[in-house]
Amino acid sequence: MSNQVTTALAYAEKNRENNLQVLKEFISMPSISTDPSARKDIARTAEWVAGQLRNLGMEAVQIYPTAGHPVVYGHSLHASADKPTVLIYGHYDVQPPEPLDLWESPPFEATVRGDNLYGRGASDMKGQIVVALKAVEALTSAGDLDLNIKFIIEGEEEIGSPNLDQFIESHTDLLASDFAINMDGGIIGPDIPTITYGLRGLAYFELRVAGPDHDLHSGLFGGVVHNPAQVLCELIAGMHDDRGRITLPGYYDSVRRLEETERAELARLPMDEDFFRDQTGAPVLYGEEGYSPVERIGTRPTLEVNGLISGFTGEGSKTVLPAKAMAKISMRLVPDQHPDEVHKQLLVYLENNAPPTVQWEVEPLAGAPASIARRDIPGVTALSHALEETWGVRPVFRREGGSVPVVGQMQDILGIESVLTGFGLPDDNLHAPNEKIHLPTFYRGIDAIIRYLDILGNS
Amino acid sequence: MSNQVTTALAYAEKNRENNLQVLKEFISMPSISTDPSARKDIARTAEWVAGQLRNLGMEAVQIYPTAGHPVVYGHSLHASADKPTVLIYGHYDVQPPEPLDLWESPPFEATVRGDNLYGRGASDMKGQIVVALKAVEALTSAGDLDLNIKFIIEGEEEIGSPNLDQFIESHTDLLASDFAINMDGGIIGPDIPTITYGLRGLAYFELRVAGPDHDLHSGLFGGVVHNPAQVLCELIAGMHDDRGRITLPGYYDSVRRLEETERAELARLPMDEDFFRDQTGAPVLYGEEGYSPVERIGTRPTLEVNGLISGFTGEGSKTVLPAKAMAKISMRLVPDQHPDEVHKQLLVYLENNAPPTVQWEVEPLAGAPASIARRDIPGVTALSHALEETWGVRPVFRREGGSVPVVGQMQDILGIESVLTGFGLPDDNLHAPNEKIHLPTFYRGIDAIIRYLDILGNS
Repeated sequence: MSNQVTTALAYAEKNRENNLQVLKEFISMPSISTDPSARKDIARTAEWVAGQLRNLGMEAVQIYPTAGHPVVYGHSLHASADKPTVLIYGHYDVQPPEPLDLWESPPFEATVRGDNLYGRGASDMKGQIVVALKAVEALTSAGDLDLNIKFIIEGEEEIGSPNLDQFIESHTDLLASDFAINMDGGIIGPDIPTITYGLRGLAYFELRVAGPDHDLHSGLFGGVVHNPAQVLCELIAGMHDDRGRITLPGYYDSVRRLEETERAELARLPMDEDFFRDQTGAPVLYGEEGYSPVERIGTRPTLEVNGLISGFTGEGSKTVLPAKAMAKISMRLVPDQHPDEVHKQLLVYLENNAPPTVQWEVEPLAGAPASIARRDIPGVTALSHALEETWGVRPVFRREGGSVPVVGQMQDILGIESVLTGFGLPDDNLHAPNEKIHLPTFYRGIDAIIRYLDILGNS
Repeated sequence: MSNQVTTALAYAEKNRENNLQVLKEFISMPSISTDPSARKDIARTAEWVAGQLRNLGMEAVQIYPTAGHPVVYGHSLHASADKPTVLIYGHYDVQPPEPLDLWESPPFEATVRGDNLYGRGASDMKGQIVVALKAVEALTSAGDLDLNIKFIIEGEEEIGSPNLDQFIESHTDLLASDFAINMDGGIIGPDIPTITYGLRGLAYFELRVAGPDHDLHSGLFGGVVHNPAQVLCELIAGMHDDRGRITLPGYYDSVRRLEETERAELARLPMDEDFFRDQTGAPVLYGEEGYSPVERIGTRPTLEVNGLISGFTGEGSKTVLPAKAMAKISMRLVPDQHPDEVHKQLLVYLENNAPPTVQWEVEPLAGAPASIARRDIPGVTALSHALEETWGVRPVFRREGGSVPVVGQMQDILGIESVLTGFGLPDDNLHAPNEKIHLPTFYRGIDAIIRYLDILGNS
């Protein structure tokens, strides 16, 4: 451990109360990105973030307007040429607090109860931003930074980051870095430091099937017309085989093989069949043969029916033979699948399998590639060491089943890999009343990020 | 031809204008059974029908109140013991006339244009009732009736005859007959006299599939849970084999075999593949291998998806893994299938095929047995002869794909077979603006029923 780290950790220890106050102040600003009337609060919050960056000694601090809410940027680029540049991502916006009557203390008056601080954004992710700010503050209080840091703190994550890709595209030089760290990734338990190095992508489609040119009476015409709802069901049923594998031609061709070392790593995650049964309420789990639940969610692609509609769905009976049927179908993609590729595979499947008795069309509605960070890049290995030094246990590595748009955007546009971690617990009530952050984990997070930046600078 | 028939036909010929006036008067009463404000018109119409029956010399004429609109009854039972009793069914209620602006003449002011009389109920089925009344009048004007006649004219056919079964059940002695004739069956062309001797039944179900106990995020849980919409599709897809046959265990066991003579008879119907493609707009027809379209609709059972719903079906994309999925599934049944029997078969199919990853339930929503009249009973053979004598061509025999509740009720409760015929053409705009009856066919209908009753009385 370097002298700088020792001093920085002591500084952080001494400043716990101050850091808590800063987080309370950050939470007090209702930066609700969904709320059109919160524009002023959003602007005030962006100003506050910019002020924090300036206080840290960051340069080029600027609030960049977008078509929506602004992005705050600042950097420190004084390390020598052989040192890495890390891009620290965050979002200063929060979810709406409703329903208000379920909060035990006001959402924008952060309140400590026991080991937790309660307030909207405490965990998602104002607390995580304060971790990063205060780690940098502690480290700089003890000496110069041995690496380059860039902060990008956006204001639209909770509404899907609709303007972030345009900002990134028009600021590629400004944002150029070796890798990104995103502390919105969470920790799966207070004693289980967590690194998320992969996310699945998404390809979302609407499939429409049409048969007769109008709804028919099922008595007068039942028996001579292929029912489009039946055809849709037949097509969907054929998309999985009896081993839970997806049958679109070539679907698994570009799926990266899961190495034994990675499987062993993922097997350390404390998420077994019982865990997922509890979480979902499903009587029996399902999925692709030959893979554990954690592997199926993180490393294997899926195909889900997100919606189905056809004909009469009200109370009682109506003997309609419907003219058409529609399904929303989406796939979660893994490296190195691409939305365009699976779109083509879906079309080939339908060309091969749709009967001549119907017409069909497919409309792509959303797409995002999968993303993954190599586990041997400095951004990941340094984080692993820093978490292990802080917690005394080796962190778990996971690949998440969902998508985080900004991670894909950074990979696509900037060509940089993101590592996700964080200090928000699964029971932090994200997006719900009584959101909180676990203060011991919050303080440990500051220590871990101090160590992380130090290891990065000295590697 | 008996003297009585010759005289009766001359009487009908002479009274064409009178008969037309009677039909116009009948049409002038807006007996709209769906319309709560039409109660008075309904009552007036029932009185009018009862008056017509009395004028005919019918006895025991009575207006029977029901929980809904009344039933009108009257009979003539003076034939010798060896003579048949025929139950003549009709309904005096009509569909609403809306949209009014599409009528070329007011719906309740019957108007002759060319060969047609326009007005609500002209064809469905006030015109058909007048055919029956005026045939009996013509025959009785020429001598005594050689058979027993019972009239049952209800007022709720257009709303599904909700109270008729109770009326029939509580008047089984009054209604006891050898067979029934229902002139609501139509004629497929002005030169193609038509006898409908079979109708399909119905068994209608709602199938609900549930997996997880709440909607899930398809990213976080896609890969470990069997998607209920997918399961529903798999179950539905398995209900037909690749020859278009239904796979429910034992489904065809009680289906009556189609005899070659019946196939030959049905092959005379002018409804080929092109006809059904035109009618439906389906690009290619579908159905059970080995049967013609007419056979598939009239004589073979089906299983249709009437509705499907699950998850998100709005605009755009929502990555939900739905907790449940629902389908409305109905079967058109043929003799000797029964709704209870196919309900059990559906349950066995689901027990055999539903995976343990979901829970499911089936709710029966509607059921009616199929019905068929033997083609060699007097009620059918006499009609065939009467139609052939009137048109100069042998009538076609058909089995219809839909259900007529009263036919099933009479078969179930009274144990009597119904033969359907009628003088309403496919282009009569039933249930639509500008409903009409083709007057040459209307007058021919009176002649045909005169002959029919005469043949029955002398057979």
